Amino acid sequence: MPISEFDLIREYFSRRISVRDDVIIGIGDDAAILQPPAGMALAISMDTLVDGVHFDQHSGPYSIGWKAAAVNLSDMAATGAEPAWATLSLTLPEVKADWLREFSNGLFEMLSRFDVELVGGDTSRGPLSMTVQLHGFVPVKQALGRNGARPGDMLYLTDTVGEAGLALWCRQQQIDLPQPYGRLLMARLDRPEPRINEGVGLRELASSAIDISDGLLADLGHVCTASQVGAVINVGELPRSPAFSACAQALLDQGLLNEEKLLSFQLSGGDDYELCFSVPLDRCHDLDSQATYHCIGGIEEGDGVRCRDKQGNAYQPQCSGFDHFF
Amino acid sequence: MPISEFDLIREYFSRRISVRDDVIIGIGDDAAILQPPAGMALAISMDTLVDGVHFDQHSGPYSIGWKAAAVNLSDMAATGAEPAWATLSLTLPEVKADWLREFSNGLFEMLSRFDVELVGGDTSRGPLSMTVQLHGFVPVKQALGRNGARPGDMLYLTDTVGEAGLALWCRQQQIDLPQPYGRLLMARLDRPEPRINEGVGLRELASSAIDISDGLLADLGHVCTASQVGAVINVGELPRSPAFSACAQALLDQGLLNEEKLLSFQLSGGDDYELCFSVPLDRCHDLDSQATYHCIGGIEEGDGVRCRDKQGNAYQPQCSGFDHFF
Repeated sequence: MPISEFDLIREYFSRRISVRDDVIIGIGDDAAILQPPAGMALAISMDTLVDGVHFDQHSGPYSIGWKAAAVNLSDMAATGAEPAWATLSLTLPEVKADWLREFSNGLFEMLSRFDVELVGGDTSRGPLSMTVQLHGFVPVKQALGRNGARPGDMLYLTDTVGEAGLALWCRQQQIDLPQPYGRLLMARLDRPEPRINEGVGLRELASSAIDISDGLLADLGHVCTASQVGAVINVGELPRSPAFSACAQALLDQGLLNEEKLLSFQLSGGDDYELCFSVPLDRCHDLDSQATYHCIGGIEEGDGVRCRDKQGNAYQPQCSGFDHFF
Repeated sequence: MPISEFDLIREYFSRRISVRDDVIIGIGDDAAILQPPAGMALAISMDTLVDGVHFDQHSGPYSIGWKAAAVNLSDMAATGAEPAWATLSLTLPEVKADWLREFSNGLFEMLSRFDVELVGGDTSRGPLSMTVQLHGFVPVKQALGRNGARPGDMLYLTDTVGEAGLALWCRQQQIDLPQPYGRLLMARLDRPEPRINEGVGLRELASSAIDISDGLLADLGHVCTASQVGAVINVGELPRSPAFSACAQALLDQGLLNEEKLLSFQLSGGDDYELCFSVPLDRCHDLDSQATYHCIGGIEEGDGVRCRDKQGNAYQPQCSGFDHFF
C-alpha cells in the first residue's frame, strides 16, 4: 500500500479532539502511557463490530463510527464508570478517504461528548470490522455489576426499549414509516445514546446494572444467573417512546404486525443500550426524581426471568433474546 | 447459534490460569474492574491479526493464539512495562472445539509466562481475526518511547534478527531446510518471544526503544522521526543465530539466494520482535553484561536511517520495510 494511505489513516485518527491531562503518551507510539487517578478502579470493555453482522450497507460510515464508540461507552455506563480513554483497531479492505472521514467523524463525535481521548490502536488490511476498547474510572467499592441483585429489589429501565428492534425489522422489511417518527426510530438503531451520566448517578443506589445490548430478557437473564435470583417483568409497564408508538400504530393499522410482535421487540429486540438496574426497596425514593426511569418489575427468589401481563397472569414472550455470540 | 457454542467459547476462555489480586471483576461482566498500582503509569497496546494477512493455513491455532498474545506483549516490552491484564476479541466464521482448544492453549501459554490474566473481551461471528489488548505498569518517568534518541547514543539489538523473514520466505517458497535448524527458524516466525524482562531492565538506561515488528529499517525509521535524529546501522554487525546461519549456508550452497537477500531479511524482514534501543554513550557500561545485546550502530544528527558496510562505505539495502498497514 502506498505510504500516502497510511498517512491518510493517521490524518483522520490522530486528531486530538479531546485532549486529556492524564495521557502521557498518546496515539502513535508502541504503547499509550496513561496516568490512572489515585484511589479509583479501572473499568475496561471491548466490543467488535463486523460488517454484515453488526451493521450493513444501510449503516453509513458516520453511524458505524458512532456506534463502535457508543456500544463500549454503554458498557462503561453499566458499571457506573466515567469513561476516559479509547483504543481502536480498524480492519479495512481498502482505504477510501470519504469513508474514513465520515467514520472518524462519527467516532470522535461520540467520544468527545464524554471527553474521551483516542490514545492508540491498530490498522490492518482485511474484511471490514472494528474493535474498540474503552477505559474508565469508578471508585473501587462502587462499581456496578451483574451479581448484586437481591430478592425484593425493584427493577428499572433508564428509558424506553424496543425502538432499535422495531427499526431493524422495518428496515429489513423495507417498510415506509410515518415521519418524523421513522427517522427517530432509525436513529435509535444507528446512533444509540450511552447512559453514562445515569450510570454514574446509580453508583451508590443500584444493586445491579446491565446495558441492554442483546435484549431485555437475555440481558436480565445474565443478571439473574450472576446474582442467583429470579426476576419478574410486568410487560404492561414496559415504556414506549412517542416514535415507537406512532410507528407501531401505523403498522398495526396496516395489519403488518400485532401487539405480540411489538412486545417481542421490547423484550428481545436488543441494541437499545438503556440500562436495566435493580434498587433495594428502601432506596427507591433516592432515585433522581428528574430522571425518566421506569419501574418494570422486581427481583425475586428463584432463577430466570418471568413475564406478567396487566392482569397479573403469566405471559409467554414470542421469542427469546439475541444470541450473544453474533 | 446454539447456546452450547457460546458455552464452549466460555469454557475455553474463562479458565483463570493466571489469577491476579488486582482483578476485582474479571471475564464475563459488561466491564472488567481492575486495580492499577499506586504511582505507576498504565501502558496499553492493541494489535489485530487477520487470517490471510498476519497468518495463514500454515500457522496452526496454537501458534496463532501464542502470536496474538506475543505481539502485544512485545509492545509492552518496548515501553519497559510489566504486563498484567489482557483482553481478547475473537471473530470466528464457525465454532470448532479443536481449534478453540488449541488457540486458547497457545494464548494462555504466552500470557501465563508473564503472569497476565485474561480479564475480558468479545466474540463475534465473521471472517477469522482477533484483537488483543495488553495492559501493563511502568513508573511514570521511566516509560521508554520512540522520541528520546539523541546524537551520540549507541544503538543495540536485544538479540538476532532476520530469522522470521527468512522463515516466511522459505515457507512461501516451500523450501526444505536442514534440521533441526529449519524448525528453530520456523519457531521464530510462529512463536516469537517478547522481550519483557529486557524491556524492564532497560527502563533507566535506554533513551529510546522500539520492538521490531515491521522490520529494523522501518521501525528504526519511526524512532528517527519521533526523535528528530538520524541513525546509522553497521550491517556487518547485525547478529545472526546459528539457525539462521545454518539455513542461510544451505540456501547459498544451492544458489537459492545471495548475501544481499540475507541482509534484506535482517534489515526489512519484520516479525522478529527483538527490541532496538539507544543508550547514551556514558551509560553503555551499565548494560547487563549477562545479556546477549549487540551494538549495531549509533544515533547521529540528521534524519533517516543509513547503512554502512564493513569497509565503512554506504550500503543501499535491497528493499524497504514492511508496510505497517498490512
